[in-house]
Amino acid sequence: MRSSRRSGVDPFIVMDVMEAARKAEAEGRHIIHMEVGQPGTPAPAGARATLAKAMDEDALGYTVALGLPALRERIAKLYKDWYNVDLDPSRVIVTSGSSGAFLLAFTALFDTGDKVGIGAPGYPSYRQILHALDIQPVMIETAAEHRLQPVPSDLPTDLAGLMVASPANPTGTMLDRDAMAALIETCHANGTAFISDEIYHGVEYEKKAVSALEISGDVYVINSFSKYFSMTGWRVGWMVVPEDHVRIIERLAQNMFICAPHVSQVAALAAMDCDDELQANMDVYRENRRLMLEGLPKAGFTKIAPPDGAFYVYADVSDLTDDSRTFAAEILAGAGVAVTPGLDFDPERGAGTLRFSYARATDDIREGLERLAKFMAERV
Amino acid sequence: MRSSRRSGVDPFIVMDVMEAARKAEAEGRHIIHMEVGQPGTPAPAGARATLAKAMDEDALGYTVALGLPALRERIAKLYKDWYNVDLDPSRVIVTSGSSGAFLLAFTALFDTGDKVGIGAPGYPSYRQILHALDIQPVMIETAAEHRLQPVPSDLPTDLAGLMVASPANPTGTMLDRDAMAALIETCHANGTAFISDEIYHGVEYEKKAVSALEISGDVYVINSFSKYFSMTGWRVGWMVVPEDHVRIIERLAQNMFICAPHVSQVAALAAMDCDDELQANMDVYRENRRLMLEGLPKAGFTKIAPPDGAFYVYADVSDLTDDSRTFAAEILAGAGVAVTPGLDFDPERGAGTLRFSYARATDDIREGLERLAKFMAERV
Repeated sequence: MRSSRRSGVDPFIVMDVMEAARKAEAEGRHIIHMEVGQPGTPAPAGARATLAKAMDEDALGYTVALGLPALRERIAKLYKDWYNVDLDPSRVIVTSGSSGAFLLAFTALFDTGDKVGIGAPGYPSYRQILHALDIQPVMIETAAEHRLQPVPSDLPTDLAGLMVASPANPTGTMLDRDAMAALIETCHANGTAFISDEIYHGVEYEKKAVSALEISGDVYVINSFSKYFSMTGWRVGWMVVPEDHVRIIERLAQNMFICAPHVSQVAALAAMDCDDELQANMDVYRENRRLMLEGLPKAGFTKIAPPDGAFYVYADVSDLTDDSRTFAAEILAGAGVAVTPGLDFDPERGAGTLRFSYARATDDIREGLERLAKFMAERV
Repeated sequence: MRSSRRSGVDPFIVMDVMEAARKAEAEGRHIIHMEVGQPGTPAPAGARATLAKAMDEDALGYTVALGLPALRERIAKLYKDWYNVDLDPSRVIVTSGSSGAFLLAFTALFDTGDKVGIGAPGYPSYRQILHALDIQPVMIETAAEHRLQPVPSDLPTDLAGLMVASPANPTGTMLDRDAMAALIETCHANGTAFISDEIYHGVEYEKKAVSALEISGDVYVINSFSKYFSMTGWRVGWMVVPEDHVRIIERLAQNMFICAPHVSQVAALAAMDCDDELQANMDVYRENRRLMLEGLPKAGFTKIAPPDGAFYVYADVSDLTDDSRTFAAEILAGAGVAVTPGLDFDPERGAGTLRFSYARATDDIREGLERLAKFMAERV
């Protein structure tokens, strides 16, 4: 059967790692998973209990396209609590994960052939979704001295949009208020729509992440219940858009999604009042991060920057290999540790980088670091 | 802020009816809802019980992009049970509702500017999603003598794709085996991809609906747990694609959705073994349909065809009005019954049609028909 050109998106290279890890486990090997970009914890107990009750009391049919009003109001309140920003709940749109938000945002903002800037390294699906929508991703090579985040002088003036992430995947680095404001100002001057991916907000270590909404109302902000709220598989997120875009998004969402999953919306609302459990998860990430920043250099991965947020360390391994894909395979085979080659995040320079995730249990992190140290010692 | 041309999709006209109904209810009026296209029943009890248990035992993180293997296998078995078709589970893709399946199918098959045929009247989101993807919907006016389904002589030869639905929304009419085979044959001869929306399968009255997979493997089939399985708000559906399209869809799904909601997949798998409860729902629809086919003509809506499936009656009211939108508003105000003007389904001829849904409780249907009869008697 015929297939489209736009469907020709790149495969995830990490999938090969995951498949090799699965095979090794099927053969009886024990593998430490530092490739996985999601918490090992379930949704908060309070969220699950609320849903169990709701399932007995409500038919849980379609919600309105923009999401449960109570959830939109509660999300607006989060902006007051976290950033001291007064946000009208009518600007909050509940989405089918941040994935659904990207599809809505890109469709609402960009036409066929438009150019959208993306920092490299960055989340690979940005460019793949843009490609699938026949929009042109423009990779912006970021510099180590800017902590692998774009700066205004990096931006072409003909961009229809710019997509930033802070804390970023795969680096965990953040844009501080000045850096974010400078990018927004440049985008506004150039007529470039500014989209801020804030999915790792809440998962931050030294200081609070800055929301683009603290700086301007004329931006798209995308967030999710996947990371801080530990609800990846539930596929529920949100987006904040300028007031005059709410109706545009509503019409698109009615047709493209009908609504985000009702059960997930119910659970998400309850999850927002489960801070004790979520902060306990954060304690684990914090300890894991400490172990990683101590253990990775000892193992020989010395070119790392301390991540501000998220649960990743991005390592420059270009002095160790010029083929991160093979290197990751060797680490899996030799150390029994699955890690992600940088090529998914940066097609140009990712052959010299690896991403280590520390989202799982602390014992796994400890064991993984020991294995990595032993493997690297024997390798040299 | 800038917005795209592709985002300029039509609003749903039924939303005005729903908003007017909501206002009337807020003012204390009692409204019968014949505008709503979803069951009033919850997911089957067995599905909810299984999920309640799973939430305590599993973190329910991301699933693989194509869906839980056990669910894909169980769906493949459904094709054996319902149609006596042997289907390789590897061709089954679990999606975020049929909405997610449309996005994946259209992206995989069509490029910017391609023409895709859609029968009118038909589900409005087909054309809106195509428009949002910069693909050109081509409305095909269907004829009453073909029970408002397209026939081969209706099809332009330059279509990249054809979208059919059987049972259809809003008409409830089906394509029998010969009619479906003739369309598929013509599409194959023209290089037109054939997409069959089978979301109302299982909700059928006189005979079993025919799946496109009974005729050819070289088609896309889209289905969902929303209707027969009574799980609209859960956003979980599926798609069956030709073997050589599985990898294309997998890559798109990884990037565009990551996965369908894990909780919904768990519940859906269990729902497939809840036939007793689902058949009890069918008994209600069957009685509702009987009441509608008896009551609507008595009320003065005489130009209707008995629906083969789904839970809609589509009425030609062109002898009563040339403005179905105003007529629906009058019916709401005068009878306290919300109905859907045909314009959403057929922008050309829908000014002379109405859709009545009978998905809700039988007492509501009975009361609604009485009100309609009284309103129409006073109107004449």
